Amino acid sequence: MAYINDNFTKIQHRYLFAEIAKRVAAYKEANPAAKIISLGIGDVTQPLASAVTQAMKKAVDDCTTTQNFHGYGPEQGYDFLRSKIIENDYAKRGISLTVDEIFISDGAKSDLGNIGDILSVNNIIGVTDPVYPVYVDTNSMAGRTIKYIPCTAENGFTGDIPSEKIDVMYLCFPNNPTGAVITRQGLKQWVDYALKNDTLILYDSAYEAFITDPAIPHSIYEIDGSKECAIEFRSFSKTAGFTGIRCGYTVIPNELKIQSESGKRVALNPVWNRRQCSKFNGASYISQRGAEAVFSAEGYSQTRATIQYYLTNAQIIRDSLSKSGLEVFGGENAPYIWVRTPEHDSWKFFDHLLHRAQVVVTPGAGFGPSGEGYIRITAFGTRENTKEAIERIERSL
Amino acid sequence: MAYINDNFTKIQHRYLFAEIAKRVAAYKEANPAAKIISLGIGDVTQPLASAVTQAMKKAVDDCTTTQNFHGYGPEQGYDFLRSKIIENDYAKRGISLTVDEIFISDGAKSDLGNIGDILSVNNIIGVTDPVYPVYVDTNSMAGRTIKYIPCTAENGFTGDIPSEKIDVMYLCFPNNPTGAVITRQGLKQWVDYALKNDTLILYDSAYEAFITDPAIPHSIYEIDGSKECAIEFRSFSKTAGFTGIRCGYTVIPNELKIQSESGKRVALNPVWNRRQCSKFNGASYISQRGAEAVFSAEGYSQTRATIQYYLTNAQIIRDSLSKSGLEVFGGENAPYIWVRTPEHDSWKFFDHLLHRAQVVVTPGAGFGPSGEGYIRITAFGTRENTKEAIERIERSL
Repeated sequence: MAYINDNFTKIQHRYLFAEIAKRVAAYKEANPAAKIISLGIGDVTQPLASAVTQAMKKAVDDCTTTQNFHGYGPEQGYDFLRSKIIENDYAKRGISLTVDEIFISDGAKSDLGNIGDILSVNNIIGVTDPVYPVYVDTNSMAGRTIKYIPCTAENGFTGDIPSEKIDVMYLCFPNNPTGAVITRQGLKQWVDYALKNDTLILYDSAYEAFITDPAIPHSIYEIDGSKECAIEFRSFSKTAGFTGIRCGYTVIPNELKIQSESGKRVALNPVWNRRQCSKFNGASYISQRGAEAVFSAEGYSQTRATIQYYLTNAQIIRDSLSKSGLEVFGGENAPYIWVRTPEHDSWKFFDHLLHRAQVVVTPGAGFGPSGEGYIRITAFGTRENTKEAIERIERSL
Repeated sequence: MAYINDNFTKIQHRYLFAEIAKRVAAYKEANPAAKIISLGIGDVTQPLASAVTQAMKKAVDDCTTTQNFHGYGPEQGYDFLRSKIIENDYAKRGISLTVDEIFISDGAKSDLGNIGDILSVNNIIGVTDPVYPVYVDTNSMAGRTIKYIPCTAENGFTGDIPSEKIDVMYLCFPNNPTGAVITRQGLKQWVDYALKNDTLILYDSAYEAFITDPAIPHSIYEIDGSKECAIEFRSFSKTAGFTGIRCGYTVIPNELKIQSESGKRVALNPVWNRRQCSKFNGASYISQRGAEAVFSAEGYSQTRATIQYYLTNAQIIRDSLSKSGLEVFGGENAPYIWVRTPEHDSWKFFDHLLHRAQVVVTPGAGFGPSGEGYIRITAFGTRENTKEAIERIERSL
């Protein structure tokens, strides 16, 4: 008799964005003429860089001839992309990595979820709270216990180093949803904690491209000792608008080892490689050629211009809502603005903005207990929509 | 202290194709001038259909404007593709499905591995032997026990219905690696067994496009009662040459329920949906537009012509090796030819063909105990390489 993974019968039924979609659909049905603007889900709106689309068209052309046809690629990704990543995202910041330490994937979300495959279900998982729901949901599905580390205005949204021991710790800076960043000194405290407690850090730096302040680290590998305790996850989704194209990557340094039941130290890099070879067939060749073009001179300047566009949106949101008397956080080295709600009920404020301003945001409570009392606004809208949404919000207050 | 999933320390270290690659690399190093032909790994060689590449270029163009830009798609895939699948792959064969029963993915390998996420680790897994290594490896990684059901020339390579109870049974027809097909009557026996024993069938029909005999079922859903016991996996990899493009799909009928620990029957469709929403972000928009074009009149006739090209290769391989006195199976409704080796040692025959004919095949032993004494040859080469490889093999015997 076939049995289900019973953890699925125990996890919370509704995914945050599904609940939002449901409320929006209900409002739309009641108000079919309403022009709703969404600054809720963190999807980009600007076209892809022309360097990227040209490269992808060339990749499509490759597949029209027997000579240039690309079938199965390496499960780990093509070296043409892995070497560009090493050169541009790491070597230029003084971080030394080799191609076998880079695994190309179809996006950070897949890898952040699937990484659990290689970890014991008995690990205690730590997450900063509020938290990207994927960390919690994917570990709950595997039956792991989760500890929430509150990130509030009082501790600068970076979380206090825990006194208890955590086996696997998710960190995300610039943070989704708070837009908070962490200093080198702050990140060094987490690395020191991890080295002392033999904690594995899963470092999500999907938003590093939005960092403008040179004092803020882009990679956890800027911190000494981190290669022995951290995996880093990155994505082209927000760096280059690849949310529909699907390409990301995961870095597992060769130095990184964790414990087996027998007490042996096991290197994670070959274990993840084994997982990927059995459960993944590589990211699309076209997506990988597109990602490669992000690192060309033209691709770099084009994608940076788009990031600047979104950062300007963030600035507009921050400034306007501040002037309206709301307390705002984030949005300076990140595409997310974290806004304290007038009353301590984020779904109530969500409903207020939907009904009074026809603007969709994300209620902080959906990100965890410490998200209550806040909403998340994204800077990924068009300028026009962003300005109009903010004006409507101001009028509704 | 972070702990590894200890199953990874217990599984066999080397993946079949990695071992082949190693032996080929060693031969190449010793014989740098040798012109090696690979009929080993099942990768396609023919260009994509022009209908597909045109659709993908248009999809790239969509991403150059704000109006037509496609960011995050539905995790389940776009309805434009799901509805085409229902109409062409199922409705035309009298099978009724709805869009919510189709989940688009980045390929069947991902789904065949990841489906384990929603199943208890205590399930006893059945596989037909010889077997596509992904079924065994991914379940071993999760710590599941695997039973091998021998598929030999004596039972027509379809496996005897087991007397013992199996919780989850993988079936693949047309089969990789043997090229065997199953009749409706044969498949009905498996469905009856599953319904009687509450077994979940995972039906891999990645090669159904190679079926030419109208008596052979393309889908398990052609068999009554199968919607209550089977998940079906399909891929555009071999149907349309998408090995580098990445697109496949999984069908989970709404009727399909399995047991929870509490004794409740749980529908698998919403559980897989929950898994996908948390661990996957949809297949590339470009790949999905390419897959959609496979169902256009032009795309259909172009992709069918390529399948016919490979089937002709298969015919050439079958006929030639038979004349040379080798016993051959498969290759008539499948792209794989399963050849009995002159001596009962498939790695030895592999080495013979590599060293004496400079042809790479896949040793049957790599697919499981019952694969010993056979090699797999694929029909996915170019005509020229296929002919030359077969001539060389004949000369080497």
